[in-house]
Amino acid sequence: MTEITNIALDAMGGDNAPAEMVKGAVDAAEKEPAMKVFLIGQEEVIRRELTKYQFNQAQIEVVHASEVIETAEPPVNAIRRKKDSSIVVGMKMVKAGKADAFVSAGSSGAILVGGQTLVGRIKGVERPPLASLIPTEKGVSLLLDCGANVDARASHLVQFARMGSIYMEHVLGVQNPKVGIVNIGAEEEKGNALVKETFPLLKELKDIHFTGSVEAREIPHGQADVVVCEAFSGNIILKLYEGVGAVLISKVKEGLMSTLRSKIGALLIKPALKQTLKAFDASEYGGAPLLGLNGLVVKTHGSAKAKEVSNTLIQCVTFKRQKINEKIRECIQTDAVSAE
Amino acid sequence: MTEITNIALDAMGGDNAPAEMVKGAVDAAEKEPAMKVFLIGQEEVIRRELTKYQFNQAQIEVVHASEVIETAEPPVNAIRRKKDSSIVVGMKMVKAGKADAFVSAGSSGAILVGGQTLVGRIKGVERPPLASLIPTEKGVSLLLDCGANVDARASHLVQFARMGSIYMEHVLGVQNPKVGIVNIGAEEEKGNALVKETFPLLKELKDIHFTGSVEAREIPHGQADVVVCEAFSGNIILKLYEGVGAVLISKVKEGLMSTLRSKIGALLIKPALKQTLKAFDASEYGGAPLLGLNGLVVKTHGSAKAKEVSNTLIQCVTFKRQKINEKIRECIQTDAVSAE
Repeated sequence: MTEITNIALDAMGGDNAPAEMVKGAVDAAEKEPAMKVFLIGQEEVIRRELTKYQFNQAQIEVVHASEVIETAEPPVNAIRRKKDSSIVVGMKMVKAGKADAFVSAGSSGAILVGGQTLVGRIKGVERPPLASLIPTEKGVSLLLDCGANVDARASHLVQFARMGSIYMEHVLGVQNPKVGIVNIGAEEEKGNALVKETFPLLKELKDIHFTGSVEAREIPHGQADVVVCEAFSGNIILKLYEGVGAVLISKVKEGLMSTLRSKIGALLIKPALKQTLKAFDASEYGGAPLLGLNGLVVKTHGSAKAKEVSNTLIQCVTFKRQKINEKIRECIQTDAVSAE
Repeated sequence: MTEITNIALDAMGGDNAPAEMVKGAVDAAEKEPAMKVFLIGQEEVIRRELTKYQFNQAQIEVVHASEVIETAEPPVNAIRRKKDSSIVVGMKMVKAGKADAFVSAGSSGAILVGGQTLVGRIKGVERPPLASLIPTEKGVSLLLDCGANVDARASHLVQFARMGSIYMEHVLGVQNPKVGIVNIGAEEEKGNALVKETFPLLKELKDIHFTGSVEAREIPHGQADVVVCEAFSGNIILKLYEGVGAVLISKVKEGLMSTLRSKIGALLIKPALKQTLKAFDASEYGGAPLLGLNGLVVKTHGSAKAKEVSNTLIQCVTFKRQKINEKIRECIQTDAVSAE
């Protein structure tokens, strides 16, 4: 019999909660029978949403949590004080082994703090990075750390590279993923102090396929499958991706509406263009896991809709089936340099 | 009588030298009569190019330099050894006061090193930042430092903010430009150690209009006119802008060619789309000045064509007319906090 993946879903987090969270859970449960979703949050509100759908009762369960952590709240305080919030309740289920994963579109800060303090790190993991899939010309790449640990050290980046490599290989199915470090030039002697210190350490690793520096210009071309950087840079990359994409697409649309001729053209190209731009839509790829925790914690976009939620839930099943955490544990506890 | 701006142009640097450099010089001289361009490089090659054009002989002069610094050469060595290279000869003309500005599409490293060692800094300027104009939804913003000084300190960033503000106001004509610091969240307590140290210093400045943090997502929307950051981050922003833009546009083109219907549509939208994308084309905005030097040094894209070269040369005239260096000198020598 297939093992069930139990997932605690924050029904109260994000701009579109609870409606899109509940819809995402129903959709995912229908697609993946070996999944059970615990909808965490204000029971009455969630139940009202659930009446809109038909679903397998054995796959969806409501877990009441009376409080909600708002995005603006200072995360450490929020986690400490709001013991009955959806984030704290969900994370404690992971800690207790009642859930394999926790998924939330809520406060990034609270999810990062809660992940470290409530769920806890795998022994040997120094800092758990937030790992996002980003669209490229060739498909997707994994960008990490994209927001969890600013001012990280070289040894942290080395662990990011190893964990990211495992994730890309076993969750995304990329054989022998190419690992690159974000740099401001292609040559080894280029970079800031952190990159110069990290580069030779990555070069020595026997368990990853390190291909050297990646200039930011090459990231969208898919030059590396695993793109390693410190969180300040990673967050810039992630956010700028969205910003440039959004502005460029709005400019294109504006251009299309500028003349009668272009308006007619726009009608003709619409279906083809939509298909193309879909490939550059982050919501297609599910949320960003916080790697290296004793359990899985995934942050989706604050603006996540049902589709992103559903994709994320299904990703959690793959994460469990592929035993990613066991692989990370084994890898971190092996001295990488001496590994064959 | 209008004062003449003398500009030394590296005729040998960049992917399209000397043809596009020479063409750019001829175009600019025709547009701006109060400009004299010294074409620096191998005389015979430059003269051969010049025979293709009609131009005012008083405005264009060839200065022979036998050597060329290649992009791959270690910059410090190249500047030291190739005394008769176009970069060294051109920069020495600025140092000697024979030229007001030096423009090159050649080796970034050599231009940065040469700028500091041959042209020299304005007294009080700690690090000269490379300042690029980047396209936004609203027009352009100035991004600095985008590559000159990695691992910069807070005091450097403060000077970048002040110099950038002067440039935006007097070269681009933006009244009271909004200055933002690149950060990974909008709140003051967010950021890495450098940003946390710099933020309160910027807040205290009386001579700039500091508006706080700018998340990378907001940069393309034009949230700040002057976008301040350390060079590692700045280089990532600059290069990712190009990379995401290039991939997205190629994806759109691919989408347009995917069906017969979309191909017909593509013909109709082409002129409107071209117009739109032009606004997102970096070459429209000229090169990136290295601010804070005793004279002006401007780096254009390695791939610069005549149009970018010509725009850059005309920018040099504005730079001189607006007495930007005098303004920077005055500003840096004033204690900004106590300035009214």
